Amino acid sequence: MRRSLTILASLIAIALSSSAFGQTAPLSPEASDPLVIGWMQGSPVPDDRKIEFADGGHYTFPKTRWSFSHLREFAPTRNIWRGADRPTKLRTRLDSDIDDVMFTPLGGGDPMSWAESLAVNYTDSILVLHKGRVVYERYLGVAAPEKPHISFSVTKSYFGTMAAMLAHDGKLDTSKNITEYLPELAGTAFENATVQQALDMTTGIAYSEDYTDPNAEVFKFAYSGGFLPAPQDYEGPQSYHDFLKTLKPEGQHGAAYSYESVNTEVIGWIIHRITGAPPEQMLSERIWQKIGAEQDAYIMVDSQGTGFAAGGLNTTLRDHARFGEMMRRGGRYNGRQIVPKAIIEDIRAGGDKDLFSQAGYKTLPNWSYRNQWWVSHNDHGAFSARGIHGQTIYIDPKAEMVIVRFASHPLAGNANFDPTSLPAYRAVAEHLMDK
Amino acid sequence: MRRSLTILASLIAIALSSSAFGQTAPLSPEASDPLVIGWMQGSPVPDDRKIEFADGGHYTFPKTRWSFSHLREFAPTRNIWRGADRPTKLRTRLDSDIDDVMFTPLGGGDPMSWAESLAVNYTDSILVLHKGRVVYERYLGVAAPEKPHISFSVTKSYFGTMAAMLAHDGKLDTSKNITEYLPELAGTAFENATVQQALDMTTGIAYSEDYTDPNAEVFKFAYSGGFLPAPQDYEGPQSYHDFLKTLKPEGQHGAAYSYESVNTEVIGWIIHRITGAPPEQMLSERIWQKIGAEQDAYIMVDSQGTGFAAGGLNTTLRDHARFGEMMRRGGRYNGRQIVPKAIIEDIRAGGDKDLFSQAGYKTLPNWSYRNQWWVSHNDHGAFSARGIHGQTIYIDPKAEMVIVRFASHPLAGNANFDPTSLPAYRAVAEHLMDK
Repeated sequence: MRRSLTILASLIAIALSSSAFGQTAPLSPEASDPLVIGWMQGSPVPDDRKIEFADGGHYTFPKTRWSFSHLREFAPTRNIWRGADRPTKLRTRLDSDIDDVMFTPLGGGDPMSWAESLAVNYTDSILVLHKGRVVYERYLGVAAPEKPHISFSVTKSYFGTMAAMLAHDGKLDTSKNITEYLPELAGTAFENATVQQALDMTTGIAYSEDYTDPNAEVFKFAYSGGFLPAPQDYEGPQSYHDFLKTLKPEGQHGAAYSYESVNTEVIGWIIHRITGAPPEQMLSERIWQKIGAEQDAYIMVDSQGTGFAAGGLNTTLRDHARFGEMMRRGGRYNGRQIVPKAIIEDIRAGGDKDLFSQAGYKTLPNWSYRNQWWVSHNDHGAFSARGIHGQTIYIDPKAEMVIVRFASHPLAGNANFDPTSLPAYRAVAEHLMDK
Repeated sequence: MRRSLTILASLIAIALSSSAFGQTAPLSPEASDPLVIGWMQGSPVPDDRKIEFADGGHYTFPKTRWSFSHLREFAPTRNIWRGADRPTKLRTRLDSDIDDVMFTPLGGGDPMSWAESLAVNYTDSILVLHKGRVVYERYLGVAAPEKPHISFSVTKSYFGTMAAMLAHDGKLDTSKNITEYLPELAGTAFENATVQQALDMTTGIAYSEDYTDPNAEVFKFAYSGGFLPAPQDYEGPQSYHDFLKTLKPEGQHGAAYSYESVNTEVIGWIIHRITGAPPEQMLSERIWQKIGAEQDAYIMVDSQGTGFAAGGLNTTLRDHARFGEMMRRGGRYNGRQIVPKAIIEDIRAGGDKDLFSQAGYKTLPNWSYRNQWWVSHNDHGAFSARGIHGQTIYIDPKAEMVIVRFASHPLAGNANFDPTSLPAYRAVAEHLMDK
C-alpha cells in the first residue's frame, strides 16, 4: 500500500477519536480548553475527568489537550540533559501588532487574523522570533513556558540533523545501504535501501495504515513501542527494533517519496550503532547543551529503552525556538558552530521535488523533503519541522523569522491546519520585514 | 501481622532477588559494578545485559545498581520543577583525610576506613557537607552529579515535612482523624486514626508482608501503584488510593510504632486534598524552587497520576544535600526561611521512644520517629531520612554536618548496612569537629 501518508500517530488518533470520523464534530477550541474541562483535577479524579494510558485516553481528543503537556506521566521516558550552564537568554521585544496581522486561508475563505488562527488551530503555545528576539509568545490551556510538550514528528528533524552531523564527521556514509550499519535488517523492507533514502523517505515499504484492520502494521508499530496500550491478545513485536524487522519491501527504493515514520526509527538505531549510546545522549551533548536550552527535554522509550525517534521528543517551546534559531543562523548560535553550515545548506537545497509531488499534498505545492526536514522552495527559502496535530518549527530565512508552535488539533495530518497556518506564518513574516 | 517492619520495597526486593535469601551470596560490590557488567549497553542490548520492567528486573539486584539511576526509563513519572533561578552554589573545600577516617562497625569487627565503607555499603554516590561546604563527594558506577537516583523512603521525610508545613500554615490539624480529610477511608484501617499517628507510624493496620503469600498486601501495594508489574491474573486495586481503601485495622491506633509505608500514601493524599494539587506541586514551589535545586526531581506515579509518596522520589545527591543543609540550619537557606524553625525543632525533639523501642531495631537504640523522620537522640542531636538499600540524608547539628548517600545494597533493610554506616558518619563528624 503505497500512497500519500500521514504519520502513524495520525491514524491512530483518528481511530481512537470517533469524533474525528466526522460522525460528530470535535469539540470547539473553546469547549476543549483543558482548563475548562478540568482534566485530572481532584483526588480522586472524577471518572469523566480522568485520563489513563490503559484505554489509550492519553491519545484521544480532547484529552490530548491536557496529555500532550504531560506525556511522561503516562509512559517511560529518558531525560535529555540541558547541561550545567545558564540558558541562553532569549531577548524579548513583543510586537503587539502581530495579533491583528490578517491573512487569507489557503483555498480561500474569509480573511482571518493571527489571533483568530490560534484558536482555530487548537494552539497550545506559539512563539515568534524575529532576528533572534521574541516578538510574540503565548501559552494557552495547560501549556506553560517550563513544561515540555510532545513534539511528534518534529522529533524527526532532530534525528535527521544528527544523522547529517555524523555524516559530516565522517562516521556515517549515507550513500551506503542501511544493512551496512544494521545487518539485522537484512531480509526486511530495508534491505538494499540506503541511509539517505531513509532520511529522505524514499524507501519502499509494505506498510499498512488501514486502521480498520487490527492487523495493520501501524498498530503493531504503536503497540511494539508502548505508545499505545496493546490489546490483551497482542503477540506481535515488543520493541521498535523488533517491529522494524517484520517489515517487508514494496516497490523500488528511491522510486517515490512516501512518508513513513519507521524510516526515522531506522535512523535512530543507526545513530545508536555508530555512537554506541542512545541517540538522546548525542542530542544532549551536541545540541541541547550547546544551544543553552533552558529545560531538560525527554523522549518516550520502549520496553528496551529505545527512544521513539519518529515522534517521542518532548521539549519546551522556547527550546525548540533556540534550535530553530540556530538552524536559521546557519548552525552558529550561543557563540559556537553547533551544526555545520553545509548541513543546513544541504537541507535548504531540498530533496527531489518530483518524487515529493507524487505524494499529492495539496497544501505543499513545489515542496520537498530532505534529511527529515520539509522544504518549501518558496522565495523566502522557508523550511520546517512538522508534527502531527500542529507541532512546528518554521524557519523563514529571508524574514529572519522562526515560528515554533505546539498544538493539539483534533484532526491528524497537517493538511487540516496548513490552510490556517502557512499563510499566517507568511503574513507575519511580511509584517516583520515591513517594520 | 504486627511486627518490626522494613518497608514494603525491601521485602519485594528480597522476593525478587533469590541471592538475597542467602542461597547464594550476592555479587560483591566490585563484581556488581554496573559499569563492569555493562547493563543496557548496545543496540540491541544482549539478553544477559538487559533490564526490563515486565519481569521486575528493574527491582532485582544486581540490575538495581543501574536501574536505581534510571527509574524513569521504566515507569511513568511526574516532574518536580526546580524553577528558573540559578542553583544555589555549593561551595567546595574537599578534605582528602576523610577517606582515612577509621571507625569500628556496630557490633564489633575489624576497624574499617571511610573509603572501605563505601564499597561495603554498595554506595552509588555520597557527599558530606560541613558548615555548608562540600568536603567530600564521590560518584561510583553509573551515578553522576546530574542524574537523579531513587530515594526510596527518604521520600517520606519530604512528605512528612510538607504535612508539618501545612499544619504550621493552619491548613491541617494533625490531631484530627484522617477521615476528616479523607472520608473515603471510613471503614478502613485508617478510621479513627489521627493524621499525627500516620505521620509517626503508630497506626494499627492489618498488613501482611509475608512474601511467600501471593495474596499478601505488600504485593498488592506494589502492583496497585505500578512499581512492580502485576501478574496476568491480578485483579486487585489499580491505584495506591484504591489499595488504601482495602486495608483493615489491627490493634489499637497509637499503641505501638509500626513502620508501614501505606501511612505515607495517606499523608500524600491528604496534602493533595488540602492543596488541591498533586503534592509534587507543593514540593516544587515550596521546597525545590526555594532551596535552589540544581536539577529537576521526579516522582514515580501510578495509573491515576498519584505519586508514590512512600518511596518514589528521584533526585540528585546534591539537591538532597541542599535540603538536608536547609533542615540543619533550622529551615533557613538560600536567604529565606523555607521550613518554619518550629517544625524542625519538633522533629528533633523526636517521637515516642517507648513505642519506637518495641520495634526492636538493634541498630537504633534509643531512637524515635517523628513526622517521617528518624531521630537518634544522641549527644549530637542527629536526625535523618532513611531509605531502603542505603539511601540517607543524615543531619548532625552539633558537628554542623550533613551526609547524603545513594546506594543499591543487595539486602533490604537498613539493619544490613547501619553497622558500617552510622559509626562511619559519627567518626567523620568527630573528624570534622576536630579540625
